[in-house]
Amino acid sequence: MKIAVIGDGGWGTTLAIILSKKGYKISLWGAFPEYVDCLKEKRDNVKFLPSIPIPKEILITADLEEALSDSRVVILAIPSQFMRSIVSKLKGFDFSDSTIVSVTKGIENKTLKRMSEIIEELLGEVKLAVLSGPSIAIEVARGIPTTVVTASKHEKTSYKIQEIFSSGRFRVYTNPDVIGVELGGALKNIIAIASGMSDGLGFGANTKAALLTRGLAEITRLGVSMGADRRTFEGLSGMGDMVTTCISPHGRNRWLGEEIGKGKKLEDVVSKTEMVVEGVSTTESAYELSKRNNVDMPIIHEIYAVLFKNKDPLLAVNDLMKRESKSEME
Amino acid sequence: MKIAVIGDGGWGTTLAIILSKKGYKISLWGAFPEYVDCLKEKRDNVKFLPSIPIPKEILITADLEEALSDSRVVILAIPSQFMRSIVSKLKGFDFSDSTIVSVTKGIENKTLKRMSEIIEELLGEVKLAVLSGPSIAIEVARGIPTTVVTASKHEKTSYKIQEIFSSGRFRVYTNPDVIGVELGGALKNIIAIASGMSDGLGFGANTKAALLTRGLAEITRLGVSMGADRRTFEGLSGMGDMVTTCISPHGRNRWLGEEIGKGKKLEDVVSKTEMVVEGVSTTESAYELSKRNNVDMPIIHEIYAVLFKNKDPLLAVNDLMKRESKSEME
Repeated sequence: MKIAVIGDGGWGTTLAIILSKKGYKISLWGAFPEYVDCLKEKRDNVKFLPSIPIPKEILITADLEEALSDSRVVILAIPSQFMRSIVSKLKGFDFSDSTIVSVTKGIENKTLKRMSEIIEELLGEVKLAVLSGPSIAIEVARGIPTTVVTASKHEKTSYKIQEIFSSGRFRVYTNPDVIGVELGGALKNIIAIASGMSDGLGFGANTKAALLTRGLAEITRLGVSMGADRRTFEGLSGMGDMVTTCISPHGRNRWLGEEIGKGKKLEDVVSKTEMVVEGVSTTESAYELSKRNNVDMPIIHEIYAVLFKNKDPLLAVNDLMKRESKSEME
Repeated sequence: MKIAVIGDGGWGTTLAIILSKKGYKISLWGAFPEYVDCLKEKRDNVKFLPSIPIPKEILITADLEEALSDSRVVILAIPSQFMRSIVSKLKGFDFSDSTIVSVTKGIENKTLKRMSEIIEELLGEVKLAVLSGPSIAIEVARGIPTTVVTASKHEKTSYKIQEIFSSGRFRVYTNPDVIGVELGGALKNIIAIASGMSDGLGFGANTKAALLTRGLAEITRLGVSMGADRRTFEGLSGMGDMVTTCISPHGRNRWLGEEIGKGKKLEDVVSKTEMVVEGVSTTESAYELSKRNNVDMPIIHEIYAVLFKNKDPLLAVNDLMKRESKSEME
C-alpha cells in the first residue's frame, strides 16, 4: 500500500520514515522545490529533523500529483495557518478510496476552525482521522517508546489508522472524540509557552505543575463547551501531549516562552527560528474562542496579554497567584 | 495562634518556616533528640533541607508535650510507615479545640489504610484535613510559586486550613474529596519511579508522558473503585503532583527509578539515601489494593515486578508497549 505524507517538516518526515520502515511505499511532499531538491540530495532533513537518514525507498517530491498517485492514505502534516491553502490544492483529486489523516495541531485564526473542519469544508465527506499525542518528532525517529491517539467519527477509520501506524515502539490508542483530540493538541501549546515563561523567570517544577494542571482545567472547560468529551483531556492528546511539550528540551513553544520570560520581545524570538511556533497563533484563536464561548480561561488570557499586549511575565504570574481563593471543583 | 509541626523532615521544616514567616507561633518536633539538638544549634536542616535558615522564632523540640502545648493546628509530617506509631503517642492529648492536618503521602503496608484513616482510627472524631499537591519542599522554601489542595470532610475545616496556609507564593485550593486527594498524592510516587526507570533506560519525554497519562488512568480507576471522585485525579493532588514528582531533579522517587533503570538493585539504591523513598512501600500497598479491588493496573504491576521480583526494566517497558491495541476510553 502507498501512503502520501504532505508536508516535509519534522513530524511529516518522521512519520514517512517510520511507515517506510514498516514496509509501506511512501511519498513525501514538500511545498518548496528547492528544499525538496536538498532533501533528495542529502537524504537528511537538515532544517527540521537533522541527522536522521531518510531511507532511499521514500519518494521525495514537490509534485502533488506524483505524491498522491495511488495513495490509499494521505497524511496532512502542514502548519495550521497553511492548512487551508494546501488542502485547496487537493480539491481536484479523488479521495473515494483514501483515508485522510491530519496530524497538525492548531486552530485557524480567522475562522477559529479545527484542522478537520477545514478539510471537511474543502473536500466534503471523506474518510478522515486525526492523529495526536505526546510525540516529539526526533524521539519517535530515534525509536523511543511513544504512545499516540487516533480519532475519527467512523470507528472503522480509526481502527485502520491504528493498525497502519502501530509498532513495538509506537503504540496507537483510538478515541471517538475528534473535537477533544484536536483541541487538546492545539491548546496545550499555549500552556507550553506559559511553562517556558515560568522557566525563564527562574521558577520550578511546582509552578510548572500548577500551570499544567490549572491550564488543563481551563482547556477542558473550553473543550466541553465546544462539544468535546472531558475524558479526552485526561488522555494522551490532552494531559499527555501537554506534559511532553512542557518538559521536552526540543519543544519550540516552551522555548519561545522561556525567551519571553527572560525579557525578550515576541517578534525578536519568532524571527530567530525557521520553525513555526504553533502556540502563538493558537493563543490568538483560544483567546477569541474563550470570549465567543464565554469560558473563564485566566492562564490563556494572561499569556495573550504577555504576547500581544506587552504585559510583564512576572506580573502575569503574580496576578494568577493572587486570584480569589477557590475550590478545585469550580 | 500557635501551630505544631510534627516531623522535622524537609516538608515539615518547610511548612514550619513559611507559617512562621506569616506570623504564626511555630513549634517543630523531631523524633530524634540528637538531630533536634543539631537543628537547634545550626538553625539549618542539613540532612533534609540544607541551606535554608530556620527562623529563630521557631521552637524546635523533641518533647511532644512542649510542641503540642496550646497548639490550635497540628501538622503531621511523618513518613507513612511511622504514622501509626507517632499518632499513638498523641492519644492522651486533647484535640477538641485543634485541627489536625496530615501532609504525608503514603498508604500503610499492613492495613492498606490511608493516613487520615490511621489518624481517625487512633484519635477518634477530630477536625481533620489533608494537604497535598505539587510542592517540592526546597522550591516552597525558596518562595517559588506553588499551588496545593486541602481536603476535609468538613467544609469549614478546609476553609480554615486554606486561610492559614495561603500566601502570595502558596495558593491553596479546597476539595471535599479526602480519599482522592490522599490516594493521588500517594500513588503518584509509583509513577515517578516508573518515569525514573524510563530516564535510566535513556528514553525521552514521549515515554514519560505516556507513563504519566496511562499511569494516571490506572490510579483513577483504583481511586474511583475506592470511593474517590475521578475529577480529583485531574487536579493538583493527582495530575499536578505527578508532573512535579516525575520531572523535578529533587524527586527521590524519580531518582530511585533512574538508578534501577540503569541496572542497580533496589536494596543498594535504598541504602544510598537517608531519606524515605515513599514510592517503594506504596508500590507494595498499591499492588495489594489493585488485587483486592480487582482493578487493572498494568504499569503498577510492572513496577512491582521490577522492584520486588527482579524483572528487567527494559523488558517491563516492552511488555507495556506490546499489550493489545486499545481505546483510550476503556
